[in-house]
Amino acid sequence: MNFRTIRAVNKKLILLDQTVLPLKLVYNTYTDYRDVIRAIKRLEVRGAPAIGIAAAYGLALAAEAKADVDVARLKEILTSVGHEIKNARPTAVNLSWAIDRMLAAGQKYQGTSLSEFRALLWYEADIIFREDERMCDSIGRNGAKILPDRCTVLTHCNAGALATGGIGTALAGIYKAVEMGKDVRVYADETRPLLQGARLTCWELIENGIDVTLIADNMAGYVMALGKIDAVITGADRITKNGDVANKIGTYGVAVLAEKHHIPFYVAAPESTFDKNLETGKDIIIEQRASEEVTEGFGKRTAPPEVNVFNPAFDITPHELVSAYITDTGLRPGGRK
Amino acid sequence: MNFRTIRAVNKKLILLDQTVLPLKLVYNTYTDYRDVIRAIKRLEVRGAPAIGIAAAYGLALAAEAKADVDVARLKEILTSVGHEIKNARPTAVNLSWAIDRMLAAGQKYQGTSLSEFRALLWYEADIIFREDERMCDSIGRNGAKILPDRCTVLTHCNAGALATGGIGTALAGIYKAVEMGKDVRVYADETRPLLQGARLTCWELIENGIDVTLIADNMAGYVMALGKIDAVITGADRITKNGDVANKIGTYGVAVLAEKHHIPFYVAAPESTFDKNLETGKDIIIEQRASEEVTEGFGKRTAPPEVNVFNPAFDITPHELVSAYITDTGLRPGGRK
Repeated sequence: MNFRTIRAVNKKLILLDQTVLPLKLVYNTYTDYRDVIRAIKRLEVRGAPAIGIAAAYGLALAAEAKADVDVARLKEILTSVGHEIKNARPTAVNLSWAIDRMLAAGQKYQGTSLSEFRALLWYEADIIFREDERMCDSIGRNGAKILPDRCTVLTHCNAGALATGGIGTALAGIYKAVEMGKDVRVYADETRPLLQGARLTCWELIENGIDVTLIADNMAGYVMALGKIDAVITGADRITKNGDVANKIGTYGVAVLAEKHHIPFYVAAPESTFDKNLETGKDIIIEQRASEEVTEGFGKRTAPPEVNVFNPAFDITPHELVSAYITDTGLRPGGRK
Repeated sequence: MNFRTIRAVNKKLILLDQTVLPLKLVYNTYTDYRDVIRAIKRLEVRGAPAIGIAAAYGLALAAEAKADVDVARLKEILTSVGHEIKNARPTAVNLSWAIDRMLAAGQKYQGTSLSEFRALLWYEADIIFREDERMCDSIGRNGAKILPDRCTVLTHCNAGALATGGIGTALAGIYKAVEMGKDVRVYADETRPLLQGARLTCWELIENGIDVTLIADNMAGYVMALGKIDAVITGADRITKNGDVANKIGTYGVAVLAEKHHIPFYVAAPESTFDKNLETGKDIIIEQRASEEVTEGFGKRTAPPEVNVFNPAFDITPHELVSAYITDTGLRPGGRK
């Protein structure tokens, strides 16, 4: 990859600003955790694993900022900061998971040295980052196995290198398969309202020399009916105990279409995306976002000002529509017959 | 309706410019048929019935423009002009149908008076317009009958007053049902790439006081899964003998989703949309449009310049997914079980 989604350098967090891709390659440097929260909210960094990593570094930044405290007091403060960061986006499980892990690592520290305590937090965030990188590689190897040579994969949104600390989840298998010499092409749903497919997936695939064709979301069914698609792979923001998947809005529709056309539908995600606290998709909170994302998503109003808008950021794909889950530990069977 | 999609006044054709809605209400006046072709191509006037009406007036304009000819020669010229107009957009059957009807009316004229011949063409175009208006009313009455009181209808693209010479096809039943006192609400797919749903359907429904909620196309499945939709109604650009429907890209996906959720899927169109020359949807030519509609649809590039784009303007919904056709003569059963 000739870009870096997330970097932590000299106690600073550097994020590739995904809101201005593909036209501009801008890196923003953060030292204040509140700016990291803002960056997460405005989708400068997005994708469940990448949000988790950024959040972990956000907590380390917060620990740096507080002066005139002892370690005990700082632990208390960080619990409250952690809460604040978790609330930046409610649906992705990785955000909560990363914050909880950072806080637990902090709690384990028994010493009284602030600098040791802070270093420990940076270290834990680095580990989260590196683990994610390795998880992506594992998902990629597992994904590459199930992709035949000469195939075309449809993907929705962006679950690539831009969404993770490594080579992605949904796109990881594609990268690894191509590396193995397989001829894999991609159709990318543009993914309204924020066009992560058009802006991010197309960009990173082209950067990596992979053949990609962009379609509007509503063309997926027709493209499948024309026989152009051999497999669908998407990422996941949260997977419940029964296998229901919360992912970018539109994933559910693609899963229904894949079933209709007897095309396998795969969900690629690390084991950490499986939320052991939730039974089914009904228990997942779906983030509703501002109506302007739909009505003014391109810097230009494209609907009457008075119109009602429904703008859920995610939908739920029931496990019955999933052929298999591609995880870092292997393949888990889905519920689709 | 407090707007007029098409008007013919003093041998001029006045079109409501649908490319600048909903922010501007601009009427363009045409006297040259070549400008009418351009207006059809750039979707200033769109919707199968409206295109047919505009094309008919375009032929009348062409007849006015030719001086130094006799009626026989003018008939020849118009046959060639008719060909040119038909080629403006290949998929909608109404365009060919209207031109053929105009030419046939012209051929029937046995006299030698140019002014009589020209008047006859204006008259024929007026009849096509008025017939369409009446067809819309009939479709509306038939559509209103099948809508229960208190229901929510999902529609795709714009098959309303802006697409016809009257109150529309898909939207006609909604207008008539509301007129009858029924509580009918609408969800409108925004309909990428050109956002006819966001720009046009939302606009005309709000203008007529009807409750409308805008969604991105990829939200239709989730909205259905939430139980928000009682029926889907779309228009059609061409329907083959076996009942397969060519309509705006994305219609097929919505039809598959409607079937999955046991929601009736209706296609509203006048009898003239049924093409007796084509057996099945496979025989329909699907217009491919410029990639910039997807990559720069909002006056701002939103995908990398190197990306491949697939941009079909229409898709085919097989008759097996249609619950019923709402036509001006009544209800025709579809092929969905």
